[in-house]
Amino acid sequence: MTYRLFYSPGACSLAPHIVLEELGVPYEGVRVVIAEGMNQKPEYLAVNPRGRVPALAYGPADSPRILTEASAIMIFLARSHPEAGLLPTEAESLARGVEWMSWLGSIVHQTGVRLVLRPDRFIADPAAHDALKARGRETARAAFADIEPRLAGQQWLLGDRFSVVDAYLLVFFRWGNRLGFAMRQDYPNYTAIMDRVRARPAVQRVVADEGIDIE
Amino acid sequence: MTYRLFYSPGACSLAPHIVLEELGVPYEGVRVVIAEGMNQKPEYLAVNPRGRVPALAYGPADSPRILTEASAIMIFLARSHPEAGLLPTEAESLARGVEWMSWLGSIVHQTGVRLVLRPDRFIADPAAHDALKARGRETARAAFADIEPRLAGQQWLLGDRFSVVDAYLLVFFRWGNRLGFAMRQDYPNYTAIMDRVRARPAVQRVVADEGIDIE
Repeated sequence: MTYRLFYSPGACSLAPHIVLEELGVPYEGVRVVIAEGMNQKPEYLAVNPRGRVPALAYGPADSPRILTEASAIMIFLARSHPEAGLLPTEAESLARGVEWMSWLGSIVHQTGVRLVLRPDRFIADPAAHDALKARGRETARAAFADIEPRLAGQQWLLGDRFSVVDAYLLVFFRWGNRLGFAMRQDYPNYTAIMDRVRARPAVQRVVADEGIDIE
Repeated sequence: MTYRLFYSPGACSLAPHIVLEELGVPYEGVRVVIAEGMNQKPEYLAVNPRGRVPALAYGPADSPRILTEASAIMIFLARSHPEAGLLPTEAESLARGVEWMSWLGSIVHQTGVRLVLRPDRFIADPAAHDALKARGRETARAAFADIEPRLAGQQWLLGDRFSVVDAYLLVFFRWGNRLGFAMRQDYPNYTAIMDRVRARPAVQRVVADEGIDIE
């Protein structure tokens, strides 16, 4: 069957969305807009009971399988289409890619960006939200300061070739802007790689398709 | 050089610790006790500036490289020693393993267990800690309820062979007990796999070495 990617505009599903477009394989994008609560509707919970995006449907059309988690979907797609070379196969380089995706997806996303954008998911009382947001911004800012020197002199995140991890990094760059950080000014190494990512035709198609802006 | 694993007893570093012992390769364990703040000391920040465990040192003895993130370390070790068969190589099974590790490491750890055990990392005001802990317990309980039916009839998490993901799952089982959940009573499928994990000689050696209990 054709792949189906369940995504919300600008969510971390943006990264596997880019990967599908880069691969040039047939796929269908299905919008599950988090801001409209679509990820908690019965229709989507039947796809992914965890109510999160992204999810990828693949396999037999009459009994598709579902894979979740951005990093897992990207590794699956890259390994299923090795000719595109979107993820290193050698142990150490592969592990570096996973290290980046794990740290971004756990610490930076869940204890940084998400504290700012969704404090209600951590504590119901709105009186506590300002403190949570402040802590989340602090964690996100420290993360960007951590990322910047690691990218010095790099053409792409993992070296001389575009990989799925560059696509993932774009999600966080965009979130940095959304959090009000001066990404272009404060993080020039990061910006340089992101400008190369955004210049890719596949990325431009996905950004237009999701209807999002990237500063 | 010999591998060096920086770990804190009972932290998620337990999983790569088990993997090293399972592989039977020479390694040195270095205790970085989080409860004593050792992970924020200059000595450790020189190893991993992010101040988190686990970290793995490998490569030339005079200029070792450092790899962080439990999932990345386990994938690196499994791929570097493929003869042990600790992680599937086929795209779909590998992706399933990464899906588990990503979800456990982000949602279950960072927005569940960590809210309960380290609410101060999210908000300074102790008055807000009870609400954070309650939310964390709710997330952790939902996660265990999610895990349980997925393990029905499974010998091991990924099928018929022990993998690094079984080791990772043990960390969360132990945390469930620490959070006061009746793990053995409420989650029999999960318990059955964990009993098989704990029966492994390598796991017993690591548990003794770290000096931890597993109910």
